[in-house]
Amino acid sequence: MVANLTNSNIVLSTKQYKVIGTRPIRHDGTDRVTGRAMYGADIKLPGTLTCKVLRSPHAHARIKSINTRKAEALPGVKAVVTAKDLPRLADKVEQMGESAVNLRFLSDNILARDKALYRGHAVAAVAATDQYIAEEALKLIEVEYEVLPAVLNVLDAMRDDAPLLHEDFTMKEFGKDTGKRSNIASRDQFIKGDVKAGFAQADVVIEREFDTATVHQGYIEPHAVTAFWNADGRLTVWASTQGAFLARDTIAQVLDIPVSEITYIPTEIGGGFGGKINLYAEPLCALLSRKTGKPVKSVMTRAEVLEGTGPTPGTHMRVKIGATKDGKITAAEGWFAYEAGAYPGSAIGAGLQCAFAPYDLLNGLLDGFDVVVNKPKSAAYRAPGAPQSEFAVECVVDEICEKIGMDPIEFRLKNAAKEGTVRVDGPTFPRIGGIECLEAAKAHEHYRAPLGGPNRGRGMAIGFWFNVGLASSCTISVNNDGAVNLLEGSSDLAGSRTAVSMQAAEILGIGVYDVHPKVGDTDEIGWTHVSGGSRTTYATGIAAIEASYDVIRQMKDRAALMWETSAENVDFADGVFTLKANPKEKLTFKEVAAKLMSTGGPLVGRATVDPTGHGGAFAVHLVDVEVDPETGKTQVLRYTAIQDAGKAVHPSYVEGQIQGGVVQGVGYALNEEYFYDEKGRMMNTSLLDYRMPTALDLPMISTVIVEVANPGHPFGVRGVGEVPIVPPLAAIANAVSHATGVRMNRLPMNPGHILETLLAKKNGGRSRK
Amino acid sequence: MVANLTNSNIVLSTKQYKVIGTRPIRHDGTDRVTGRAMYGADIKLPGTLTCKVLRSPHAHARIKSINTRKAEALPGVKAVVTAKDLPRLADKVEQMGESAVNLRFLSDNILARDKALYRGHAVAAVAATDQYIAEEALKLIEVEYEVLPAVLNVLDAMRDDAPLLHEDFTMKEFGKDTGKRSNIASRDQFIKGDVKAGFAQADVVIEREFDTATVHQGYIEPHAVTAFWNADGRLTVWASTQGAFLARDTIAQVLDIPVSEITYIPTEIGGGFGGKINLYAEPLCALLSRKTGKPVKSVMTRAEVLEGTGPTPGTHMRVKIGATKDGKITAAEGWFAYEAGAYPGSAIGAGLQCAFAPYDLLNGLLDGFDVVVNKPKSAAYRAPGAPQSEFAVECVVDEICEKIGMDPIEFRLKNAAKEGTVRVDGPTFPRIGGIECLEAAKAHEHYRAPLGGPNRGRGMAIGFWFNVGLASSCTISVNNDGAVNLLEGSSDLAGSRTAVSMQAAEILGIGVYDVHPKVGDTDEIGWTHVSGGSRTTYATGIAAIEASYDVIRQMKDRAALMWETSAENVDFADGVFTLKANPKEKLTFKEVAAKLMSTGGPLVGRATVDPTGHGGAFAVHLVDVEVDPETGKTQVLRYTAIQDAGKAVHPSYVEGQIQGGVVQGVGYALNEEYFYDEKGRMMNTSLLDYRMPTALDLPMISTVIVEVANPGHPFGVRGVGEVPIVPPLAAIANAVSHATGVRMNRLPMNPGHILETLLAKKNGGRSRK
Repeated sequence: MVANLTNSNIVLSTKQYKVIGTRPIRHDGTDRVTGRAMYGADIKLPGTLTCKVLRSPHAHARIKSINTRKAEALPGVKAVVTAKDLPRLADKVEQMGESAVNLRFLSDNILARDKALYRGHAVAAVAATDQYIAEEALKLIEVEYEVLPAVLNVLDAMRDDAPLLHEDFTMKEFGKDTGKRSNIASRDQFIKGDVKAGFAQADVVIEREFDTATVHQGYIEPHAVTAFWNADGRLTVWASTQGAFLARDTIAQVLDIPVSEITYIPTEIGGGFGGKINLYAEPLCALLSRKTGKPVKSVMTRAEVLEGTGPTPGTHMRVKIGATKDGKITAAEGWFAYEAGAYPGSAIGAGLQCAFAPYDLLNGLLDGFDVVVNKPKSAAYRAPGAPQSEFAVECVVDEICEKIGMDPIEFRLKNAAKEGTVRVDGPTFPRIGGIECLEAAKAHEHYRAPLGGPNRGRGMAIGFWFNVGLASSCTISVNNDGAVNLLEGSSDLAGSRTAVSMQAAEILGIGVYDVHPKVGDTDEIGWTHVSGGSRTTYATGIAAIEASYDVIRQMKDRAALMWETSAENVDFADGVFTLKANPKEKLTFKEVAAKLMSTGGPLVGRATVDPTGHGGAFAVHLVDVEVDPETGKTQVLRYTAIQDAGKAVHPSYVEGQIQGGVVQGVGYALNEEYFYDEKGRMMNTSLLDYRMPTALDLPMISTVIVEVANPGHPFGVRGVGEVPIVPPLAAIANAVSHATGVRMNRLPMNPGHILETLLAKKNGGRSRK
Repeated sequence: MVANLTNSNIVLSTKQYKVIGTRPIRHDGTDRVTGRAMYGADIKLPGTLTCKVLRSPHAHARIKSINTRKAEALPGVKAVVTAKDLPRLADKVEQMGESAVNLRFLSDNILARDKALYRGHAVAAVAATDQYIAEEALKLIEVEYEVLPAVLNVLDAMRDDAPLLHEDFTMKEFGKDTGKRSNIASRDQFIKGDVKAGFAQADVVIEREFDTATVHQGYIEPHAVTAFWNADGRLTVWASTQGAFLARDTIAQVLDIPVSEITYIPTEIGGGFGGKINLYAEPLCALLSRKTGKPVKSVMTRAEVLEGTGPTPGTHMRVKIGATKDGKITAAEGWFAYEAGAYPGSAIGAGLQCAFAPYDLLNGLLDGFDVVVNKPKSAAYRAPGAPQSEFAVECVVDEICEKIGMDPIEFRLKNAAKEGTVRVDGPTFPRIGGIECLEAAKAHEHYRAPLGGPNRGRGMAIGFWFNVGLASSCTISVNNDGAVNLLEGSSDLAGSRTAVSMQAAEILGIGVYDVHPKVGDTDEIGWTHVSGGSRTTYATGIAAIEASYDVIRQMKDRAALMWETSAENVDFADGVFTLKANPKEKLTFKEVAAKLMSTGGPLVGRATVDPTGHGGAFAVHLVDVEVDPETGKTQVLRYTAIQDAGKAVHPSYVEGQIQGGVVQGVGYALNEEYFYDEKGRMMNTSLLDYRMPTALDLPMISTVIVEVANPGHPFGVRGVGEVPIVPPLAAIANAVSHATGVRMNRLPMNPGHILETLLAKKNGGRSRK
């Protein structure tokens, strides 16, 4: 039942490459496996103080006073900071890279000023000579709270009589301020065609409600930061981050200092998945360093990671789809309410945009709510917002297929979005590979294989993620042995050093090991956006390609000098310069490199890019499960993930991304959730209790890479990192539904939930926790 | 008598600048004074082993065998290396940056293979868990030596019957192999005009012989290296060096591995003066790391620095100059023999080229010998080769002036080299500032001030150093607050970060503190030559200027986009972009920088240069001394150093270079020498016994900066770091001669030597130690 490691790639792109598509060992592999790679916690500067953070024990409380005197008097304590030490920022929305951020909220989330809005909300921070003194000092800080009623669920929070998190807050509807005080931060809507008329044409209409839990990214490495504020006013921060430049710029905003006064040195990163973009301890360590003149370091505990950083939004959703008997969707509408956590911004936008994206709809309506609740401010998590909405949509589509007795792949093929399809949220699709993925799934042996036992079910689902482009920089310096040093600014989450180097190698016509990549800090390389949005291999790859072309332009001058001609008489292809007039005259890249010093000196190429042709990615997943009717436990028996990579630069890394996304999806579907008591206290703040899948819980995830070249990238590359987490929730829910005979509409589908659902069916009713 | 800190600059350049010529605080100042700057010895990696080097106790000995077994068996010893572990390199001369290097000699100097050629020559190296075990292990290494007679003096070494250091060695004369076995590695000659005829026209001819001692650069920081050879084959070296790239490339040669497999990370450097260009412990630590899999670190003791690294050559010289009664030189010839140390290469070439450079000679002859002796292989030391030869020439010129009763400045003005002068060694001078320096000296109050006491004398001398250009690289990244990050590859010996940043700031029209400089490692920046040859502010400055122009070209595109026009309609001057059609339309650099992200994304400029217009620098020094006839002690009473800086980018740093050069020259003239016993053992291997000047020995060195713009640099910059060590030897010798009434022709003029000279005069004879 376990699929083997060898995957059959359906290569639709015809261009053949020398380096692209091969599977070299990553440049940083040895450092990683020998423990030499430096992660955030490995930074050890002389005289470093330990930072510990006092966090609110209440999910919702007014802070009436904070008295830090006793803590400050404790021997070994060097400084204490509270929100008073942070500049009071205006209620101003700034574009911070990809998203618009209200600076006041950003600051308030770093240190609670007037109210603590979730359990775990930072209230004060201490710098001391060691961890134990720092922890002791936290106990000596006296905070007077006025405990307020908490709202822990999006539906509760939306009620007119709900306790308000932000008392001065008024809801925005369709971009306009309603003036209405509410926990609903905003409501947005997209409409295409005439939904009412569409439903009227349907033979079958299914409408269901869905819930998903608050779930954490679950990266292995807890957040670790060291900051040193030098006596000359310059601040240096060492930390694991998905984006050193955005982090630098955000620190500058929060501390109200110029970005150029900050050097952000990104360490290696032990997982991020979107959760290492937001700031937490950086400004605290910086302020404590400014007060003490010493480096200050913070390493979170796992409980702090879970309670004090940003999980993905829990949701409540309602989806209604109508179709004809022969399987044509006539209308679809969805109502989606996402928990933003304590401050607005829940990825509801992306949730709406992805929800119906796999389908070519004539009539559609998307209605979305961004709602604050007394939970940590939500953060990005792999395809943020999409897994939830597509879970709802794909479960309803599955039920329609059941109802009209149609093969679910045939149904999706019949309604599939394609090049030219206008999405409900507006944009028109460029060349996409959704249909090719569906065809590959249909042709796959897994889809026809017998289930082989009782209590088993097979599910499938399709998922979409746009991917993004955004700014990247690269410089390439040529060594006289013909190898090059490549400097880029993208944190390497999963092999991007190598995937970026491969693209440079392909252009330069040299081997991948002839490219020596390095991730620069914010003083060394041009502005580069976060490693997120499935953008790194795509956009930093384009930067590497452009920098390679800049190298070749200059190398042509050198070759021309060697031939005593001018550069326009020189051609370059596959690593070889030729004389146009006499193509038998050849100089390899290495031969020209060896002569740099006698043809004008060193040679550096550079590129800064902000590409927009990022395409979009589809994934189709097939999963077989067996559900134990006695215990409610679901075993994933077989999993096949099919995905359009555009062009897989490094197929092993694409497969790794797919497998990783699926595993996270399995956890999301079956087990993971923030479990709160009635007072808003998270009860499962360790990885023993917060149940992520282990290798023992999983079969080998089989992958199929489909390659529908992205016209927006020279090699056809599409982002691959996020879309694999989109289909698993629905695919597994559909499989469990088929195995049990009852539709599953709430995550996680843990044994208790499944047993309860089965029991409710037996009793003829519906389950609701 | 002590001159004040304020110096009167004679500004001959007319162009006014905003940043160039100001005196900002250096960017790295705070780190330096607070102890945060990381020097070679500050590198501390987990699991680092300590390297200690076994050195030859003999000045000349055949190595019959080395037995390392007992040392290897000592608990805590992890590895031992001998020459057997180094690849055996062919007798091949490779261009290593500025100089041609015989790879076999290079390797043999790092670890003696068949013979130890000087006391202190490395014979083996040990890596152990601590320093004490490593030192204990050295004692357990059994080396069987056959002790050979040593030659410690250039004249002894040149004798036909001298013991030969290299038995397979034959002398090269005028570029051709003579086939003659000799310690003379090579003889070179330059001839201009007809020397014989010239001397025939002279009214007065003076011929004198001179000796100078072996002298060390005396940098504060001993050599410190850490190397880690990773399991993936990549070698990383952290060390203080004058040039990370040349060091990287040299390690690659010595270890016979590709340069691209090495990352050389330059730390801050506590002085170099030419002595931190050659390799010593880097390959040893690298080999020991490869054997052990651990980082290996070497920090030399002061005795190791003195005995095991490269001092400047001792010399024997004979100079003959003829002149007419009215002060016109008719002919000059010089015979110069320089001690190369154990392997060829003594800077004799530069010695010859500089010797007569201050003079416009019709007839000249330069004869030079590069001679091996049983002393450490000589290294570069500030204007390498020039202080010695100009000491001889300037003493003879002074004696001629005495003889014909002519003012020494008038004499030099009458014979001064100028633009168009063809040097004896061939090249024609571009615009130079020798005459302007002489005029400034003549006009200086010091030159007319009464000496004010008995046993006092005033001396003067002129000196020349060519300076060099060579390869440099720079990248500049623009931040959205309008400041920029500047990445360069030049080790910062004396404020070059700031001097380079100032040039970028001037071009970009921003403040010097808006430029954030960083010295990159060999993976981060393009190939950049050593900080040496007085090239850094000149050549890396040009790289920064060119990178700034690359930034401005791209910024014009952005400004054009903001104005909805094209770049050719945009002007730029003094940090402001204007619309050509309507110059009232202005955008500052900062305003355009703030909009980068909406006009195409990040922006990086780059330049790689190899400039050749490095000009040349003259210095004229005036010095007053008092010699105690009882003790022979010389006190320097007053010192004025006048120098053509072309354009002083940062006048304080130029003054610092001048003052530093003078101080080293004072030590060279009066006290410093390698003192050997008859067996070739250096007897003064500590800074207590090797007597460098302290602040108590010196008056404030007064400086005058002359600015004769160098046409080969956009701001007229000339190198300034080396020429100030050229005139002091002769200026002080001339002053001592005038104070004592006897000509001094041997360095150092320490009290013993002066007393001996005075005594010889009394006895009517000549002194010779």
